[in-house]
Amino acid sequence: MAKPKKAPRPNAETPKGFRDYFGAEVTERAEMLGRIAGVYHRYGFDALESSAVETVEALGKFLPDVDRPNEGVFAWQEDDEGGKGDWLALRYDLTAPLARVYAQHRNELPTPYRRYAMGPVWRNEKPGPGRYRQFYQCDADTVGTASMAADAEICAMLADTLEEVGIPRGDYIVRVNNRKVLNGVLEAMGLGDDEARSAAVMRTIDKFDKVGEEGVHQLLTTGRKDASGAFIEGVGLTEDRAELVLAFLNSKTIVEKELRDGPPQPDERIPGGMGVKLNDLQDRSHSAGQAWNWAVMDHLMRLVGQTDIGMQGLKELGEIADLLAAQGYGPDRIVIDPSVVRGLGYYTGPVFEAELTFEILDEKGRKRQFGSVAGGGRYDDLVKRFTGQSVPATGISIGVDRLLAALREKGRIGGHVEGPVVVTVMDKGRMADYQAMVAELRNAGIRAEVYLGNPKNFGNQLKYADRRGSPVAVIEGGDEKAKGVVQIKDLVLGAKLAEGATLEEWKERPSQFEVPRGDLVAKVREILSAQQGGRH
Amino acid sequence: MAKPKKAPRPNAETPKGFRDYFGAEVTERAEMLGRIAGVYHRYGFDALESSAVETVEALGKFLPDVDRPNEGVFAWQEDDEGGKGDWLALRYDLTAPLARVYAQHRNELPTPYRRYAMGPVWRNEKPGPGRYRQFYQCDADTVGTASMAADAEICAMLADTLEEVGIPRGDYIVRVNNRKVLNGVLEAMGLGDDEARSAAVMRTIDKFDKVGEEGVHQLLTTGRKDASGAFIEGVGLTEDRAELVLAFLNSKTIVEKELRDGPPQPDERIPGGMGVKLNDLQDRSHSAGQAWNWAVMDHLMRLVGQTDIGMQGLKELGEIADLLAAQGYGPDRIVIDPSVVRGLGYYTGPVFEAELTFEILDEKGRKRQFGSVAGGGRYDDLVKRFTGQSVPATGISIGVDRLLAALREKGRIGGHVEGPVVVTVMDKGRMADYQAMVAELRNAGIRAEVYLGNPKNFGNQLKYADRRGSPVAVIEGGDEKAKGVVQIKDLVLGAKLAEGATLEEWKERPSQFEVPRGDLVAKVREILSAQQGGRH
Repeated sequence: MAKPKKAPRPNAETPKGFRDYFGAEVTERAEMLGRIAGVYHRYGFDALESSAVETVEALGKFLPDVDRPNEGVFAWQEDDEGGKGDWLALRYDLTAPLARVYAQHRNELPTPYRRYAMGPVWRNEKPGPGRYRQFYQCDADTVGTASMAADAEICAMLADTLEEVGIPRGDYIVRVNNRKVLNGVLEAMGLGDDEARSAAVMRTIDKFDKVGEEGVHQLLTTGRKDASGAFIEGVGLTEDRAELVLAFLNSKTIVEKELRDGPPQPDERIPGGMGVKLNDLQDRSHSAGQAWNWAVMDHLMRLVGQTDIGMQGLKELGEIADLLAAQGYGPDRIVIDPSVVRGLGYYTGPVFEAELTFEILDEKGRKRQFGSVAGGGRYDDLVKRFTGQSVPATGISIGVDRLLAALREKGRIGGHVEGPVVVTVMDKGRMADYQAMVAELRNAGIRAEVYLGNPKNFGNQLKYADRRGSPVAVIEGGDEKAKGVVQIKDLVLGAKLAEGATLEEWKERPSQFEVPRGDLVAKVREILSAQQGGRH
Repeated sequence: MAKPKKAPRPNAETPKGFRDYFGAEVTERAEMLGRIAGVYHRYGFDALESSAVETVEALGKFLPDVDRPNEGVFAWQEDDEGGKGDWLALRYDLTAPLARVYAQHRNELPTPYRRYAMGPVWRNEKPGPGRYRQFYQCDADTVGTASMAADAEICAMLADTLEEVGIPRGDYIVRVNNRKVLNGVLEAMGLGDDEARSAAVMRTIDKFDKVGEEGVHQLLTTGRKDASGAFIEGVGLTEDRAELVLAFLNSKTIVEKELRDGPPQPDERIPGGMGVKLNDLQDRSHSAGQAWNWAVMDHLMRLVGQTDIGMQGLKELGEIADLLAAQGYGPDRIVIDPSVVRGLGYYTGPVFEAELTFEILDEKGRKRQFGSVAGGGRYDDLVKRFTGQSVPATGISIGVDRLLAALREKGRIGGHVEGPVVVTVMDKGRMADYQAMVAELRNAGIRAEVYLGNPKNFGNQLKYADRRGSPVAVIEGGDEKAKGVVQIKDLVLGAKLAEGATLEEWKERPSQFEVPRGDLVAKVREILSAQQGGRH
């Protein structure tokens, strides 16, 4: 046989936009997902793991067009016998697969179907700093019920989940808005039938977080110069109408002012606002904690006027607030807040967002709120694509990596895995003895290993232990073997002493102990628990 | 805007060869992986999660050829600006990515590097019954040491892992072989330089599990008719040589016979065998439990003669057996057995396989052993592709789905998730009351939910509870509300009673209780623990 031509060495690199996760990055995520799954389970949600690969057809949003079949997704064509087959793609989120699964298995699944899913999703996008093309999502959705109780439940579960993973109450807020209220505002200002302009307003609102109030005002009216100097044309609303939209977005600030300074005088009222009083909504019993939510809704009532869609949106928000109040979730945890704009164009009813409210320092050293870690809402048309029938559904998606980053920022997780006890090798011929020590330690539940590198240079063994973050090293040379003892080195204390201990301290707390071989496990355990005590 | 043409409805189906996993299938796998990770961690292995996507170049084995760029893998070409970019592919195992990761990060990683990895892998193969194109693997490897202590450790860890996930001692065996011993056998029979014929022998041996002893004998010599009647040409070995190969494969049976009937008489000896006595190997101290391993090696000694490679293989097997004996792992758990043939062509030294030895009924109702659930070995050239330097490595891969199937077969896991307590909805207007009940139950750690479907038909609510496998239903109608009580239905007991209880039993153990509203949580907890008691 002729020898094949020698291929050049391949580059040892992840593809652009992908990365590897090591040690604590993996275990801390796994632990967090386990905790989240625990809460979801308690709420009656069932696990689902759909395949990572879907037909492009089923993913839908990214139906292949002739020029760029894989816009936004990683896609390829099946190589069927005798020709080309289906286009397949990696899922880009966990919602599109849920719609496919529900349509496919709806006869065997319970209705309503509460399911949770966690796993990687893939986006064929230009990667940027901290932006990867593979990342984790963790979703919970309820399919098959239009009841606002499902939406309220999702919000309560989200609050419970954040506390369960280590975000204390007060450090987060779940905000709830409703797409129908915004539709009501647009209808009240006479844009109800102007689809194009309504869509333009929706797109503009989506930029609220980015360009701020003044920017949105300019974009809704005459237009705006962006940072690069380019002019972005405005939607062309009148001042009055633009003010109404801003009054919707700024509901929170306006209501805060009202509650502080008393109700607005007639001439301070928002131009075009209807000033209608809450009637059927207000005669329910509600706790004092609800005052805020009702004040916001009173304000929104003035904006949506008597439009059916707006009133329905408010009724839905009221129901959610009532259900949450009955379960003890006040506005300190879940609050009605129309400034939630993300996804308003996608969702059809309630929209949710969870924000972490503590401050961090950004790249430039400025304080800012940590921001959003989860979002979701109600979407009633996703399954319809497959079956022709509308199936109401509502759910939430947690940004796992951002939540992990937040927990690290707060010092709630250490980014640190306890290293193993390292049994050093003083005599290559007695490897079996060392392995026996390690087996004893492991059987006692202690993480341990024998040094498996070249044992010639003892310094390298201690360097290795240091690199692994080992708490303890065990040494048994010929002398120790003859005396029936082992040396046990407390590496944590040793490092502390080396850093600047006085001779007295050194003598008082030795970092190395000689103990009978039979006491190995007991002494190691004693040192480990002393280290743990010192750490916490 | 012109309305876009209406697309036909997509099929709600997974791509061919893919499937979805529901409920217990997901949670039981997650729990098993968690237990395995616990053992790996205790052994000092660190977690690694590499990206699911690699460059085809890094995967190596599947370098794109012009005709079929994605033979065996799912591959696609990057759509770079201004042209075509790299070929990317989904990983087909966890070993090739480990080689890439180690080559890429070797300066930051400790040496030796012990890592574990778990996750899905993808194969672009023709799917068959029970064969999917996405499945889980769970690997542990030690990179950067040639020490047999690393191999012994992997075997011990594998035994511990099987016990940890619920396979009792005696129901599994880890078998160890060594590629170098087979090389020694081939060299001893004069095939050392005949690469083509050696490779043909290797390929034939790989079929041992499939065609059995007689089949291998025919294939090694003159050839064989397969089941379809087609003639497969033989390797053309002489009878003597073929007998030697079979004596290698049948070592276990031969040694069993020797230990039963005494050592073979000279004329019974394998033709061509050298009959050399163990010398340097035998003067070690070893426990009685080692007798078996040493008898096998004595037998192998006769087969490999004085070849260096064969002696080296035997020395390695001896080292592994010694190290394991020192840690208390006898041949009841880990045994030297040359009938392990899978992967002999791929690995360069020790080869491992874990088999479950209990019997199950196959599709045709015949008893057979459950078989292999894990395999691995030493491969010293994987990283060399990237760096040019040989890096010794050894490891194991557990077939997660087969192991799960085994545990289900043994009744060790139930394939069952405890359903939620269902609070039924008798009065749609009092949803907040029902949610409050559910919140109380959840806060007490009890899985619970309100029925969120259309509450009109009460029968549907109980049917839903049945479908969810709910243990308890809670009912609070208007009468109950007025009296300050709730009805609590024990659905497990109810089902039992309905199946055939006498009137006395029915009266004695009511399946429905009326309790004060304030006692809801306590009573539900009482019923749940009674159910659990009855189940175990």
